[in-house]
Amino acid sequence: MSAVYFDHNASSPLSKAAREAMLPWLGRPANASSRHGYGRAARAAVDEAREQVAASVGAHTTQVVFTSGGTEADNLAIQGICANLTISRIAVSAIEHPAVMKPAVAMQRHGWRLARIGVDAQGLVNDDSLQTVLQQPTGLLSVMLANNETGVVQDLVRIAALARQHGVLVHTDAVQALGKMPLDFRALGVHAMSLSAHKIGGPQGVGALVLDKRVDLQPLIYGGGQEKGLRSGSENIAAVVGFGAACAMLPLGNLSNLRMRLEKGLHALGAVIFGEQSERIGNTCFFAFENIDGETLVMALDRAGYAVASGSACSSDSSDPSPVLLAMGISPTLAQGAVRVSLGPENTASEIDGFLEALRIELIRMKGMAALAV
Amino acid sequence: MSAVYFDHNASSPLSKAAREAMLPWLGRPANASSRHGYGRAARAAVDEAREQVAASVGAHTTQVVFTSGGTEADNLAIQGICANLTISRIAVSAIEHPAVMKPAVAMQRHGWRLARIGVDAQGLVNDDSLQTVLQQPTGLLSVMLANNETGVVQDLVRIAALARQHGVLVHTDAVQALGKMPLDFRALGVHAMSLSAHKIGGPQGVGALVLDKRVDLQPLIYGGGQEKGLRSGSENIAAVVGFGAACAMLPLGNLSNLRMRLEKGLHALGAVIFGEQSERIGNTCFFAFENIDGETLVMALDRAGYAVASGSACSSDSSDPSPVLLAMGISPTLAQGAVRVSLGPENTASEIDGFLEALRIELIRMKGMAALAV
Repeated sequence: MSAVYFDHNASSPLSKAAREAMLPWLGRPANASSRHGYGRAARAAVDEAREQVAASVGAHTTQVVFTSGGTEADNLAIQGICANLTISRIAVSAIEHPAVMKPAVAMQRHGWRLARIGVDAQGLVNDDSLQTVLQQPTGLLSVMLANNETGVVQDLVRIAALARQHGVLVHTDAVQALGKMPLDFRALGVHAMSLSAHKIGGPQGVGALVLDKRVDLQPLIYGGGQEKGLRSGSENIAAVVGFGAACAMLPLGNLSNLRMRLEKGLHALGAVIFGEQSERIGNTCFFAFENIDGETLVMALDRAGYAVASGSACSSDSSDPSPVLLAMGISPTLAQGAVRVSLGPENTASEIDGFLEALRIELIRMKGMAALAV
Repeated sequence: MSAVYFDHNASSPLSKAAREAMLPWLGRPANASSRHGYGRAARAAVDEAREQVAASVGAHTTQVVFTSGGTEADNLAIQGICANLTISRIAVSAIEHPAVMKPAVAMQRHGWRLARIGVDAQGLVNDDSLQTVLQQPTGLLSVMLANNETGVVQDLVRIAALARQHGVLVHTDAVQALGKMPLDFRALGVHAMSLSAHKIGGPQGVGALVLDKRVDLQPLIYGGGQEKGLRSGSENIAAVVGFGAACAMLPLGNLSNLRMRLEKGLHALGAVIFGEQSERIGNTCFFAFENIDGETLVMALDRAGYAVASGSACSSDSSDPSPVLLAMGISPTLAQGAVRVSLGPENTASEIDGFLEALRIELIRMKGMAALAV
């Protein structure tokens, strides 16, 4: 496997720092609840990692609840916050990750109503739509900070302030934002924020929910009472340690120069770049070419040695057009062409140039085949 | 850290085989939902691990749902099965792990009633109590296969058959049984079974729920639709691969000769061994001495270089006597003295002899101090 990896929003390779922090824990017995020396060492390692994670987002250690990943953190926020509120309504933006959208939909089983807040053509939450939704009694609002497909960053400070005026609790999925933009839990003014390790060079299988301590959270997973009873189960020591080490190395570095190089080339090839006019995290570019199928292009680029995505990995099993793009008013035909490049710290300018050349060749080939088919 | 490790029921050190299987995945980008080469390699690795886990318990690969660990598997079983049943009653044995007991208690929020089934002095589910409970309409019965503290093994084939006669679904927490006794999902006749990797030399942060496919399960964690929609979230590739590798090495080996050596020595020192007359998994010994505090003894043994537990790690934060022992009718005073030794494949006879000698010295010291205090 030696393809150039341009799919960091799906999963980033483990960084050297995280790997080295983890290795000593792969082999050492460790249950952080045990009272013997091994257990105390494990507890100390978890405590240190909790400090590193908290520090990376300007939170206090007591606000960090470790989970098995971003998806669990999102579910814990949505299901866990609502479970302790009077049943009313959950509001989510129309471009949320399935890890937020699906539990929000599932809460309807428990009598909750669901409001979707529209976005504009550039992927930003629609102000009128937000204001209208907040007029109605709403328990929880969830708006992601940076979109996993387009990279578009919401003005969450404003959104959260508005929600607070209406007494609405606010959650944000910051999984794709972490490390790619300044992130301060307090400054955002949200009540809960989801993080994931494996999008920032940490290991898979660990994430966190950062929580305003005044929020009354119902656990999703009950048991031995770990994480102050909010998330039971033996702590995953190596993974937590790796998460902490990855957080200690943030930010990931400025990738927007590389992306600029990429997008200049894409424009020259005639691409439409989604959310281009909005503020975006620096590593992400989501684009399409008219009359070129994204899925087919991704497979062709894979054969040419470039690993990119046709949308979020989470919906890669589906060949429906991206709901994020449809919510932005992109035509289903163009959305069907979507390809995502998401860069990481190890990517280089020559990889970008090679990619653009491979893309150029594939486009000629695919357009030629389309012409033949007509 | 060089103490002799006798706390394998809390967490086993990662085996060499599991570690070597995992290492290539710590550094390689891998999202099993991605369609490029990296993603397909990750998917193939997950598929192989699923076969290894399934094979180790006589199940089909389609029956294995990967989770973040045994606690999540237990919660998924209890909450996920009940969510799709008509509200009635959950029955659990009085000696269940908190990962079963706590979600069962939590289901009372949703209108479920809870019945606890008593055990006898040897830790076995009381037949009359079980029969009585099953007379009443019951949706789900959960009885653990091998107890984490005493090691006592239930006659689950009989219990499950009885429950099935009453149309009751059966879940078993087999976390401590896996690798330490023959385990065949079909032969047990249960509908759902929880497993954990880090009790068998696999990594922390991964487990599985093995499921009779006729059971209609509601997910606990929603999102990208991984694990056929039953457990969303990017697969933890390295951990899943390590779990598979650990399963491929089972059984863990016969540890009952070592335990026999230990228990011969414990008897000579005047110990009471809990559940001794019952069938037990071969690695576990739970014992106490009259008028000797277990917690104090564990700390003294730790200083002497032996890592043992005063109960399950999951309740190590609490200094209340073990609910398992109280359910067996052990006096709170004697239960307060409980110490657990749980052996692993790397332990040796000379470690046992050293432990017995250290224990003898500590007992003399502690009894002397008690005598002085009088």
